[in-house]
Amino acid sequence: MNSKCEILTLADLCQYLKENDNYLVLTHASPDGDTLGSAYALKYGLKKLGKKVQVICPDEIPHKYDYFIDDSECDFIPETVVAVDVADIKLLGDLWERFVGRIDLNIDHHVSNTHYAKRLYLEENAAATAESVYEILDELGVEFDRKIANALYTGLSTDTGCFKYANVTVRTHEIAAKLHALGIDAADINRIMFDTKSKSRVKMEMMVLNGAEFHFDDRCMMLAVTLDIQKKTGCTKSDMEGVASMSRSVEGVLVGVAIKETEKDVFKISLRTYDPLDASAICKKLGGGGHKAAAGCTVNGTLAQAKAAILSAIKQALEEADAGSSITE
Amino acid sequence: MNSKCEILTLADLCQYLKENDNYLVLTHASPDGDTLGSAYALKYGLKKLGKKVQVICPDEIPHKYDYFIDDSECDFIPETVVAVDVADIKLLGDLWERFVGRIDLNIDHHVSNTHYAKRLYLEENAAATAESVYEILDELGVEFDRKIANALYTGLSTDTGCFKYANVTVRTHEIAAKLHALGIDAADINRIMFDTKSKSRVKMEMMVLNGAEFHFDDRCMMLAVTLDIQKKTGCTKSDMEGVASMSRSVEGVLVGVAIKETEKDVFKISLRTYDPLDASAICKKLGGGGHKAAAGCTVNGTLAQAKAAILSAIKQALEEADAGSSITE
Repeated sequence: MNSKCEILTLADLCQYLKENDNYLVLTHASPDGDTLGSAYALKYGLKKLGKKVQVICPDEIPHKYDYFIDDSECDFIPETVVAVDVADIKLLGDLWERFVGRIDLNIDHHVSNTHYAKRLYLEENAAATAESVYEILDELGVEFDRKIANALYTGLSTDTGCFKYANVTVRTHEIAAKLHALGIDAADINRIMFDTKSKSRVKMEMMVLNGAEFHFDDRCMMLAVTLDIQKKTGCTKSDMEGVASMSRSVEGVLVGVAIKETEKDVFKISLRTYDPLDASAICKKLGGGGHKAAAGCTVNGTLAQAKAAILSAIKQALEEADAGSSITE
Repeated sequence: MNSKCEILTLADLCQYLKENDNYLVLTHASPDGDTLGSAYALKYGLKKLGKKVQVICPDEIPHKYDYFIDDSECDFIPETVVAVDVADIKLLGDLWERFVGRIDLNIDHHVSNTHYAKRLYLEENAAATAESVYEILDELGVEFDRKIANALYTGLSTDTGCFKYANVTVRTHEIAAKLHALGIDAADINRIMFDTKSKSRVKMEMMVLNGAEFHFDDRCMMLAVTLDIQKKTGCTKSDMEGVASMSRSVEGVLVGVAIKETEKDVFKISLRTYDPLDASAICKKLGGGGHKAAAGCTVNGTLAQAKAAILSAIKQALEEADAGSSITE
């Protein structure tokens, strides 16, 4: 953790955004709806204030987000680097080396934020970074338009599983109501984000469910998307999103594990937990992090080794939870 | 349609509810979150005003709704019969004969409402009947408590696919925000309603997806849950909810069809459509009805006959849609 990281209030942040210009806004790698929606809403909002802004995403942006992406060539020399929804400098992926020590501002909502930037605006209680960006643009007096609203709604909706998760607050619904009033395409957005599967995805789900494993008295469900399954079904990276949620959906399951083989012998593990388990704490044991109900880590080795590593961490967490509950009984 | 059906305003309705007493509140058969949530919230609200109220559901209430169900023995003679979220008297199932011509008041939001009651409060733009009940109780000055809020939230959330569908409006999110402020158990409720599958359900999904059919250039996906599949997987009636949504989830699909064999040679068909298709209009051709994006009907005969009947109705609708779009091109 960087002790030189200055923690900003909303007023500080708005002051900083007004005083500076020529913004380079960075999203995290493997971009999701919140990092992209927040980054582009910030871009469109700051441009309305006369600022020059460019968004850079470390990875290619999936086409499903096209409806709010509007990029033009960068015609200025970037001066101010802002990372949005990026909890850790490592999450910049291939851009990591280029920007380490050079992030002027970080706007985020992850408890696991590593304070790597020079300045940090962190709202740990925000369901999505998009909630903070809504408040920031509102505070800056930006006139919201439909494109900004669609981008923010995408962040809000995707980071809450469409208002389903425990991170939703009164404010989340209040902002959603305000965005709806701007004529957003909510149903279309949700259809794209939540209800549109490719045929490859449907085939992949079937193969993955066929190989489902249950552990610890069925309190843990584990699904694995091996390279073999990916090849056989032709499913893409974006086809594989949400497998983690599938793993938590069976009655009685407290922890869902989705293991994706990203390259031979490299396994990206996603965890989804219910109370009292803390996904972030479990993943931290294997060098990862995230939120209490959703976190991840990467394990190298064979599939069997990856499974053993995460199962061991989960076993410990379940034992601690069992011990905790017996004390309070 | 009953020309003697009196259409009430919100003020009329509240006046009526204040003036009368000894309420029997009816839900529709095969109860869902909205009919139950609305009926029980109305019950708890009216009781706070000193009224006597009993809820009757034509079918057994699934245990997943236990958290807001609170019934005591009926210690009064019912005088005023209110049907909640019941679009058609036939939807009272086995209670139909007992109550035909005897429904004093109907509170509903279905476009397909048949005006069968003596009085009707119909808000076709409400995403859920629970939205109307929220407004009614608010107008009556009822002090909301957590049980009422949980019941109403259940109606709101289940009838909108957790705020995912096109029926969601600014008001839907505004009410959700107000209910959140009352300390509802939103995440737990959504977990129970949307993210909890039994193992039988998971097995059933796999078998059903294995038999998925695509028609009309993949614009229609058809899933069938036959009695054979139900027997092999041990899935219950409530395990089969939501199969219709699965049928609409594949890329490019405009109409999803879920066919459930309810008894030998009786098929309950659920349709889910996207613009420009109208599920209600398609189902009407086979004697059914519902909403624009979600409707249903029942067909007797063999599975092949049921499939042929609904496919024929869909074919016609697709051809009409194609013709319509070519005119506007």
